[in-house]
Amino acid sequence: MGDGEDAGAIGRRRWAIAEGYIPPFSSGKVGRAFESHETACLLNAGASDAHVRITIYFPDREPAGPYLVTVPARRTLHLRFNDLASPAPVPRGADYASVLESDVPIVVQHTRLDARQAESALLSTVAFAE
Amino acid sequence: MGDGEDAGAIGRRRWAIAEGYIPPFSSGKVGRAFESHETACLLNAGASDAHVRITIYFPDREPAGPYLVTVPARRTLHLRFNDLASPAPVPRGADYASVLESDVPIVVQHTRLDARQAESALLSTVAFAE
Amino acid sequence: MGDGEDAGAIGRRRWAIAEGYIPPFSSGKVGRAFESHETACLLNAGASDAHVRITIYFPDREPAGPYLVTVPARRTLHLRFNDLASPAPVPRGADYASVLESDVPIVVQHTRLDARQAESALLSTVAFAE
Amino acid sequence: MGDGEDAGAIGRRRWAIAEGYIPPFSSGKVGRAFESHETACLLNAGASDAHVRITIYFPDREPAGPYLVTVPARRTLHLRFNDLASPAPVPRGADYASVLESDVPIVVQHTRLDARQAESALLSTVAFAE
Repeated sequence: MGDGEDAGAIGRRRWAIAEGYIPPFSSGKVGRAFESHETACLLNAGASDAHVRITIYFPDREPAGPYLVTVPARRTLHLRFNDLASPAPVPRGADYASVLESDVPIVVQHTRLDARQAESALLSTVAFAE
Repeated sequence: MGDGEDAGAIGRRRWAIAEGYIPPFSSGKVGRAFESHETACLLNAGASDAHVRITIYFPDREPAGPYLVTVPARRTLHLRFNDLASPAPVPRGADYASVLESDVPIVVQHTRLDARQAESALLSTVAFAE
Repeated sequence: MGDGEDAGAIGRRRWAIAEGYIPPFSSGKVGRAFESHETACLLNAGASDAHVRITIYFPDREPAGPYLVTVPARRTLHLRFNDLASPAPVPRGADYASVLESDVPIVVQHTRLDARQAESALLSTVAFAE
Repeated sequence: MGDGEDAGAIGRRRWAIAEGYIPPFSSGKVGRAFESHETACLLNAGASDAHVRITIYFPDREPAGPYLVTVPARRTLHLRFNDLASPAPVPRGADYASVLESDVPIVVQHTRLDARQAESALLSTVAFAE
């Protein structure tokens, strides 16, 4: 189904998140919800599955990827960069950035929970879309 | 009244918030102001009431909604997702995303107060507009 | 000087911040830097002074304003909503939103320091521009 | 290489961050990662190096700069304003704003870690692009 025909679709096909840093450890409360993590929240409000290619950029070496994820039609995927495994895990405690390319329009929002200290800190922003 | 005639109106008619997560509990200070919550701040600066339809997207099932809210002309509504009740409450401690559609231009900003720990954490971003 | 002739100018003339809430009290460290506050950071990178009109919107009554501020050419003004006094102070502990209108292009970013608890929380986002 | 020929490039050439404040001290955990800092995260996903000129704006005096940085092709640079030295360090505990101009498209995201108290606070937003 083409874009022009998909009234539910919203967003763009190419997104960038210039900020990236997975805190190397966690403290405070225990459990997956309280682990330090970086998330790309992907929304595919359209009627076709979104096939997303993620490339990770570093300060001092060639980019890694593509990492491939699918966001089914009319679903959201809150993707933890911590969980990306293939072709290689994203290094902890190191700067990175990312570009996300989808075959259908999606919306991307970036969030970090930093649990390195007893109390968590949060940040979030809609990513840059082209 | 059409857009072209409403000099006060600002914004867009279709917005998306890819991030959504209502922390499942609160601790620390007591009272509604300190409860964990997710808010969509809606501003209708125009001269006509805004009728807004909200659809909630999940990772693993069909979207819920529409949730219907009205933002009167020249008013702001700071809507807590926690308070949405019909057709069904938004689940706590679970990922979601949302699309907001209005019949007149509005501005949407997304904020979360996370009070799961003794000290609160905050995030905010202007939503994605199309 | 017109826009077309001002190579330094960057931004837009009309901005909206849908989120607004001045925490009603502070705790923790003492001093103006640690007081709970909401700020609109205004950047005027151009060669002409910016005359800015701010209107404040509420959930349940007519908007207040205009509040008038000037951002000199090639200057930034980090304006605390707490400090707005005329025609009337912005109420504490209450929801509001704002529209900022300038006669030359400016950039607007919204920040809150919430010091109601022992440890501060921060949020920030670029405002919505039209 | 021109833009039209660089399929990897994403972003814009002119960015502004209206918010700027380097907390004047740090407390809590020790180490560079936990020092209060303000960062401009720059992503150059294209095939040509990005030469970036940064100008810093103040409330009460002429702008400082240009500060010159290079982001190599297909790399990210998480630049701490704390580290800018030439032509002059950015003052601590004082309001500023910045404009970033690049010769090729880049993406800019703004982040602050505020470690003035025992627990850190975080903010982040994609900068304003023109």
